[in-house]
Amino acid sequence: MQAIVWNNGVVSFLDQTLLPHEERTCDTADYRVVAEAISSLRIRGAPAIGIAAAYGAALSILSPHVSDVAGALKELEESAGILAATRPTAVNLFHALDRIRRAAAGAAGGSLNALRERVVAEALSIHQEDIASCLSIARRGAALLPAECAVLTHCNAGALATGGMGTALGVIVEGYRQGKVRKVFADETRPLLQGARLTAWELRRAGIPVALLTDSSAGSLLASGAVQAVIVGADRIARNGDVANKVGTYPLAVLARRHSVPFYVAAPLSTIDRTARSGSEIPIEERNPLEVLELAGKRIAPEGVDVYAPAFDVTPNELVTAIVTEEGVYRPPFSELGTPVAGGE
Amino acid sequence: MQAIVWNNGVVSFLDQTLLPHEERTCDTADYRVVAEAISSLRIRGAPAIGIAAAYGAALSILSPHVSDVAGALKELEESAGILAATRPTAVNLFHALDRIRRAAAGAAGGSLNALRERVVAEALSIHQEDIASCLSIARRGAALLPAECAVLTHCNAGALATGGMGTALGVIVEGYRQGKVRKVFADETRPLLQGARLTAWELRRAGIPVALLTDSSAGSLLASGAVQAVIVGADRIARNGDVANKVGTYPLAVLARRHSVPFYVAAPLSTIDRTARSGSEIPIEERNPLEVLELAGKRIAPEGVDVYAPAFDVTPNELVTAIVTEEGVYRPPFSELGTPVAGGE
Repeated sequence: MQAIVWNNGVVSFLDQTLLPHEERTCDTADYRVVAEAISSLRIRGAPAIGIAAAYGAALSILSPHVSDVAGALKELEESAGILAATRPTAVNLFHALDRIRRAAAGAAGGSLNALRERVVAEALSIHQEDIASCLSIARRGAALLPAECAVLTHCNAGALATGGMGTALGVIVEGYRQGKVRKVFADETRPLLQGARLTAWELRRAGIPVALLTDSSAGSLLASGAVQAVIVGADRIARNGDVANKVGTYPLAVLARRHSVPFYVAAPLSTIDRTARSGSEIPIEERNPLEVLELAGKRIAPEGVDVYAPAFDVTPNELVTAIVTEEGVYRPPFSELGTPVAGGE
Repeated sequence: MQAIVWNNGVVSFLDQTLLPHEERTCDTADYRVVAEAISSLRIRGAPAIGIAAAYGAALSILSPHVSDVAGALKELEESAGILAATRPTAVNLFHALDRIRRAAAGAAGGSLNALRERVVAEALSIHQEDIASCLSIARRGAALLPAECAVLTHCNAGALATGGMGTALGVIVEGYRQGKVRKVFADETRPLLQGARLTAWELRRAGIPVALLTDSSAGSLLASGAVQAVIVGADRIARNGDVANKVGTYPLAVLARRHSVPFYVAAPLSTIDRTARSGSEIPIEERNPLEVLELAGKRIAPEGVDVYAPAFDVTPNELVTAIVTEEGVYRPPFSELGTPVAGGE
């Protein structure tokens, strides 16, 4: 299963808002459709957002109304701006668009065709690198797991969230293949239920036993001793190892620490923001209050109530047992995260 | 607004499963309807369950087919057994039924009419005492709050959950009246959304500003410093001060401690189970997995997933700043909870 596919000038993506009820693939050659899909969470997950944005930018300069290099560069600036404005927290989005812009600038002295080929090649590279990163993260992460373990995850950091086999869920799937993981507990992940809708769906497709729980049931689950590791993805990681991820991650980290359960973050190096010294410098997206006030299109709260709806929270580095990347496993105090690494930016 | 009313042999209750969309009052003279209403959470909240069970037991001996004292006592045993089997965690249920049984036993030497009057009077007393308890708890709890505070609560421990003005929500409403509480944050409280549906509804009716949040957003909310007190109710409190309450309470207590926010439990003495030495002796109800797998009647997860669905969790005494009862405020190590108190049982 692939969340996003580039097919000769057309981007095909699975509309994740319809899962698990319907598996509908959308095909588009219009970058605005890609931008809307990111905004509306049809495409979601930090690495997948980066890949989709790169493909979207590539689509924009393949448009028939682009007739020369200057027009392509202008179009690229516009499309990159629109794609960058879709979601503020996942840094992979900005990293991918920067790579596309640099690739275009490097090819600006040649023909329009050469420029187009260079940009498409860069977008495909971003995707291919993510596939390889996922595999490496999965293997490095699985090596950390004990035998016969049950793991807890939050939101969806699986194949749907990446170009490859997933980050946190990649570790879990690889751990299952190795016979180490015997059961997965998945937080449903309110408000948009990515755990119930997407993680449970991916795990069932893979034949891996999964138990769903409401997010706040994780407290008694961890207290019961039934879980040996918590593994999550990340939307942005600061230089000091503070991790921004789906809201609800921070409470899990606090509970994991209290019950001496290791708390792992699995993410490609493209998730690291070396301009952010700590989590306090990471912008946290506030989503539409209706995502909390409504469920399945039905109002659940009375009129007149206010809403507190951050999409992400920040887990301080001291609660993170390790950050698993494609290049290696980083542990506190995470001083290596501050230095540039090949493939990181 | 009264969740339950006794009206001359008829119990009237608000069907809480329909809130906030519909305010439907059900009238019944059949204790089986009351028992079903408790099982299905039409009537909910530990003190309200106790009151409803007492009224239900009283209804059973008012039935026209009860013709003598022996028949009444037999009917009472049967109805009390059915009412006691509705929900396992809230101890108020068992305390109330014990009082009704003792009242009946005390009047067994007289006429059927005298027995009926005695049992109805006992049920009315249980209700009246709860009204008084709520008021006392509200005043004692409000005294603990700082000026100009925002408070966070979980589930619904309001008028809907009691015979009076509520426990945790009673404290909050009284704190608002005194000008101390300026804002309330309400966890939506998955899976059955008592926070979104009931607490937000009660607070809006009272004109108190309320912001709704998904349960796992409480982590970043507490980390932000926006909350000065967490106040919750309880379904059962062990002798050592361990508190069983709606699942999700324990994570809140852990987070409150981490951020040095006081964590208050507001509950009548009837919530204390003096036979339970610690929280590990409190039975925790598992609810129907469909409550997690479905939302508003719509399936949210794929087929084939398991569910972990405890209705309650246990907060260890060390995380509880104080337990506010009608008789006084108890603080760790809660040694007074082990001794019988007037009105407690």
